[in-house]
Amino acid sequence: MKRTTPGETGLSRIVKVLEAFDKGKSTLTPAEIVRRTGLPAASTYRLVNELIDVGFLDKSDGGVQTGVRLWELASRESKTLSLRNTALPFMEDLQDAIRQHTQLSVMDGTDILYIERLSAPDAVVNITRIAGRLPAVVASPGLVMAAFGNRELQEAILAAELPQYTRFTPSTTADFRRIFAEIRRQGYARMDGWIDEGVSGIAMPVRDAEGDVIAALSVLLPNDGKTPRMALPAVQIAAAGISRALGWSPSHH
Amino acid sequence: MKRTTPGETGLSRIVKVLEAFDKGKSTLTPAEIVRRTGLPAASTYRLVNELIDVGFLDKSDGGVQTGVRLWELASRESKTLSLRNTALPFMEDLQDAIRQHTQLSVMDGTDILYIERLSAPDAVVNITRIAGRLPAVVASPGLVMAAFGNRELQEAILAAELPQYTRFTPSTTADFRRIFAEIRRQGYARMDGWIDEGVSGIAMPVRDAEGDVIAALSVLLPNDGKTPRMALPAVQIAAAGISRALGWSPSHH
Repeated sequence: MKRTTPGETGLSRIVKVLEAFDKGKSTLTPAEIVRRTGLPAASTYRLVNELIDVGFLDKSDGGVQTGVRLWELASRESKTLSLRNTALPFMEDLQDAIRQHTQLSVMDGTDILYIERLSAPDAVVNITRIAGRLPAVVASPGLVMAAFGNRELQEAILAAELPQYTRFTPSTTADFRRIFAEIRRQGYARMDGWIDEGVSGIAMPVRDAEGDVIAALSVLLPNDGKTPRMALPAVQIAAAGISRALGWSPSHH
Repeated sequence: MKRTTPGETGLSRIVKVLEAFDKGKSTLTPAEIVRRTGLPAASTYRLVNELIDVGFLDKSDGGVQTGVRLWELASRESKTLSLRNTALPFMEDLQDAIRQHTQLSVMDGTDILYIERLSAPDAVVNITRIAGRLPAVVASPGLVMAAFGNRELQEAILAAELPQYTRFTPSTTADFRRIFAEIRRQGYARMDGWIDEGVSGIAMPVRDAEGDVIAALSVLLPNDGKTPRMALPAVQIAAAGISRALGWSPSHH
């Protein structure tokens, strides 16, 4: 008898349980976890208790939530948190200047993952959230990281579905290849009305000491022509500030 | 033959591996993980590879680091991150006003865990860091959360060692019981020169909609008598602002 089959190891069950916390659900009952994961009930209840014991889950009114101890282990000495700490003061300055969503993202596979966001109360519509992800192809930080990434990454991103949100969304891989080249030439990505006709996204690359693009700084602005054009230098300066704080210098490259 | 002994389950090994990332080490080689955890080498190498597969660890120059996917699962729908997001604007306002370390902490067992910190470049000496922890008894947020916590928590905290940092550090449990009563009466904790003679800590309770103290907002200031006294109203207003944003209202209690 096989001890485990792929997708049924203890670790993959832990991942499934943690993945169940999604779509605004910060508290789940064990029964909801069973339903959302499709795992066997008895062993899932046992696993939930084990996860509580080690602090990966915390008991909560009416169920369990992801644990503060898990957050601590994931955050302590984390490069993600370190990048975010370096970026935060520059993001605050940018947010002060433009009074709109200011976001920091990294790539994970072909998705972008938002690791920080500062928002103004009256800012434009935004479909993202911190620790949320989107396919790289539908957001300006994904485009800028793809454009400055290697050909392999670009092809993987373009192999995914190309959702059509508005009449301005590019619809063919040829469109995107042309856009990648344009982004490399101009040094930033700008998406006017691609996701929502009223919203424009601008993203700039964030570089580490070796000059590699490791993150993207982005803003969402009203798609009124003049606001995105006026905001460009501010976003550029803030992104360069983060890169410099990470050890990057234009003279080295 | 027993399949596992306590402390040797798959889950506890995962926790041990993640705990190995500490003391400024964001990248570890598998050999360092074996050394730091004391786990068997062969199974640890195998576990490290499994953790890379699910994104709990990421490959890095010269080893592995905690994974961006782990950070995502720990942060998504997390109450910790949600609390921190609610608190951040008030922390920024406070930081703008006092130009010193501004910190948000929660209790985990008898430790305080720092979940956010904003720092000024020329701020006073600070032994803490984000996702770092300290015994509750040695920091003002720990004292304020203990003082507003139940008797059980207070006794658990006082059962731990009471480290003596300076001539101002209280040294007996009787001192601390008197201090807890004083904190409840005055509504905040103030530690002048307890950890470092030049530093004063002030902490205010952060309450949720039910009025429970779920976090503490704290600042570290020069211990010069006048700065802490002048900063008190600002810290109080910022902490009250966070509590109100969490649904608390003084009129309900």
